[in-house]
Amino acid sequence: MTRDIRMKGFTGTTSLEEALAVIRDRVKPLPPEEIALDGAVGRVVASDVRSAVDIPAFARSAVDGYACRAEDTFGAGPFDAIELKVAFEVLAGKKPPRPLGRGEAARVMTGAPVPDGSDSVVMFEHVEARDASIRLVQALPPGKNVITRGEDVKKDEVVAPRGRRVRADDLGLLTSIRAGTLRVHRRPTIIIYSSGNELVRADSATQGDVEIVDSNGPMLAALALHEGIAATRGGILRDDRTLIADALRSAKADVIVTTGAASTGKEDWMPVLLSELGELWVHGVSIRPAHPIGFGRLGERLVFLLPGNPVAAFVGFRYFVRPALNLLGGIPVAEAFAPERTRRAVLAKKIQSVIGRTDFTRVRFLEDGRVEPIRTGGASALTTLTRAAGIVTVPRDLEGLEEGTEVEVDLL
Amino acid sequence: MTRDIRMKGFTGTTSLEEALAVIRDRVKPLPPEEIALDGAVGRVVASDVRSAVDIPAFARSAVDGYACRAEDTFGAGPFDAIELKVAFEVLAGKKPPRPLGRGEAARVMTGAPVPDGSDSVVMFEHVEARDASIRLVQALPPGKNVITRGEDVKKDEVVAPRGRRVRADDLGLLTSIRAGTLRVHRRPTIIIYSSGNELVRADSATQGDVEIVDSNGPMLAALALHEGIAATRGGILRDDRTLIADALRSAKADVIVTTGAASTGKEDWMPVLLSELGELWVHGVSIRPAHPIGFGRLGERLVFLLPGNPVAAFVGFRYFVRPALNLLGGIPVAEAFAPERTRRAVLAKKIQSVIGRTDFTRVRFLEDGRVEPIRTGGASALTTLTRAAGIVTVPRDLEGLEEGTEVEVDLL
Repeated sequence: MTRDIRMKGFTGTTSLEEALAVIRDRVKPLPPEEIALDGAVGRVVASDVRSAVDIPAFARSAVDGYACRAEDTFGAGPFDAIELKVAFEVLAGKKPPRPLGRGEAARVMTGAPVPDGSDSVVMFEHVEARDASIRLVQALPPGKNVITRGEDVKKDEVVAPRGRRVRADDLGLLTSIRAGTLRVHRRPTIIIYSSGNELVRADSATQGDVEIVDSNGPMLAALALHEGIAATRGGILRDDRTLIADALRSAKADVIVTTGAASTGKEDWMPVLLSELGELWVHGVSIRPAHPIGFGRLGERLVFLLPGNPVAAFVGFRYFVRPALNLLGGIPVAEAFAPERTRRAVLAKKIQSVIGRTDFTRVRFLEDGRVEPIRTGGASALTTLTRAAGIVTVPRDLEGLEEGTEVEVDLL
Repeated sequence: MTRDIRMKGFTGTTSLEEALAVIRDRVKPLPPEEIALDGAVGRVVASDVRSAVDIPAFARSAVDGYACRAEDTFGAGPFDAIELKVAFEVLAGKKPPRPLGRGEAARVMTGAPVPDGSDSVVMFEHVEARDASIRLVQALPPGKNVITRGEDVKKDEVVAPRGRRVRADDLGLLTSIRAGTLRVHRRPTIIIYSSGNELVRADSATQGDVEIVDSNGPMLAALALHEGIAATRGGILRDDRTLIADALRSAKADVIVTTGAASTGKEDWMPVLLSELGELWVHGVSIRPAHPIGFGRLGERLVFLLPGNPVAAFVGFRYFVRPALNLLGGIPVAEAFAPERTRRAVLAKKIQSVIGRTDFTRVRFLEDGRVEPIRTGGASALTTLTRAAGIVTVPRDLEGLEEGTEVEVDLL
């Protein structure tokens, strides 16, 4: 297999759709773990969470006012005021002293339990308060301003279904049922390696002027962090077969991401070694940029071989690694491959492409809200990405997209 | 002023637009600080960053192949092969031993500097390699497969303008110019207080069945964390004038966020105390939910008084606190008030509203991609939010939105 890759180049052409199907079919959620609720936002619920309690746990007042029996107020009107005796007061967090009797009202504060026997609350500003009584000139419908027990959540109701990615409002709801901890899918760990004899760390002393600063390592780590994962920085690997093999074999992470040495050149050890040590599922995808991308498995670890070209590394992470991280983290398939933020816009200028290849075209917005492709003379230049507001995908069965086409922009 | 708020209720009706204009006009960016590049993603650049170097710093090869003088290949064709002598090899990260002479070629690896004198690179697979020479059957245009010095970034060029929110690709670019550190606006610190005698912590032993678990504190902390800010949890405050005054006065943060006691009731100390101790800029906004919201200033601290109703607290954070955090963090005004992720969709069902009030209506997506409002019998119920996929804003000058209207959904 070694000889094949390095001498023959890419063995076939895998389409984007075929490559993503491999990820979709082979990447399964990591096992669940129990975590404290505080850290649960962004995590994926591993099994349905049911409430052990009613929310609210007691009928309570939604306003400051007087709890009444609605039927006592029936018939009240501007010329037929009804008077109720104020029997007691209920403060928030306190139990009512006794049930409410006929013809009685109880002063209640917002959030306070309404006394048994009452079924509605009239707001302070809607009554005439006397010394120990109130006068109403309007009948109350039963239930007015009362939040009934279990109105929000009923006991045994599912409050967070399996596969749900926890949001801040879910956290609020789970807190209110005193969930305490939550069973979520484990988040994948990642290690990132950059490969290339020309690479130096940004903080290294300059040795000459023929080195290139490893910017992909930090960029990929930032992309991982955006997915909530603090990646391990494996550092820079020389283009050395033994050294790279050792690094891959000893990497401790669910996902190994490498950048550089991914193609079919003399020093491109990544696909060679992955196919020897593990399984190289796909190598070479008919996309631009990131055509030499490869991925597969080494033991239990997923391995992504991204090209060294920074734009290609970025695209490879965004459209291959990120969906895989989503799947590992338990995100359902439909969502795992969906872009994070999109905006529909009209093309102000034609995008050229080639049939048989999917293009990820960097675009910028014009003042009128339309988009145009960024000129990419040097396609490897990171500035073609930093100047872009988003990416438009040109499908492989098209020669390009005409001016005036409505496109979905994957926002950066 | 105390008496006014609590006895007279809201003194006027502030529209959403007026309230947001107050935030826009009075909230200014925090002073800049110098931070390590590694933590810069999401932060806002405080002053233009210019590159001190050309990127790339040297002309380099984009492929594995042979560096040539293009003019030496002019006239090459299928029946007119041109032969060049392979003079030396240049590995990535190494300097070429000498300039390239006429009629010579140099073997170069991707990323390696091309020797002086050469101006193009032909890929290995496009030549016939002999022992010490190569044969080309096609002329090379000058510049072919060579990335010239400064092609990506020229020395003194601005690579990250003031006001730019740093993305992962910016981080890559800033790494490649060895920026090291970055001047960014300081990120605001936040302290969160929940207020109400009925509130208990989720981890407290149950005292009876008339308490309510404080779910807003954790939810607001999660919302802050989503903005990149680890909030300080101030905890639960009893409805006690002195206690709340002390808490507000001693809070150490750029932003104080409280939830509960925000309205005009007997125990609603927040607006009273803020107007006494500092400035209450706005109290009561004609919106639903979150109508009792208030905000102002206490010394140098911004203070947001969110209602205790969890949905109102969520809405208050999203549409008032978040833009203020953005402005403090240096995000330009136009972006600071923009929703994070939106999707356009058609209403499958009418949304009812009232003229003079802006409604934040929770909606869910139907299978056909249209949206419908969530029934909100108990408007305070967090489940009306957790069941929603987004929020549609109904402007104050409309009585509602008709079925079939295209709306922008602020995605949760």
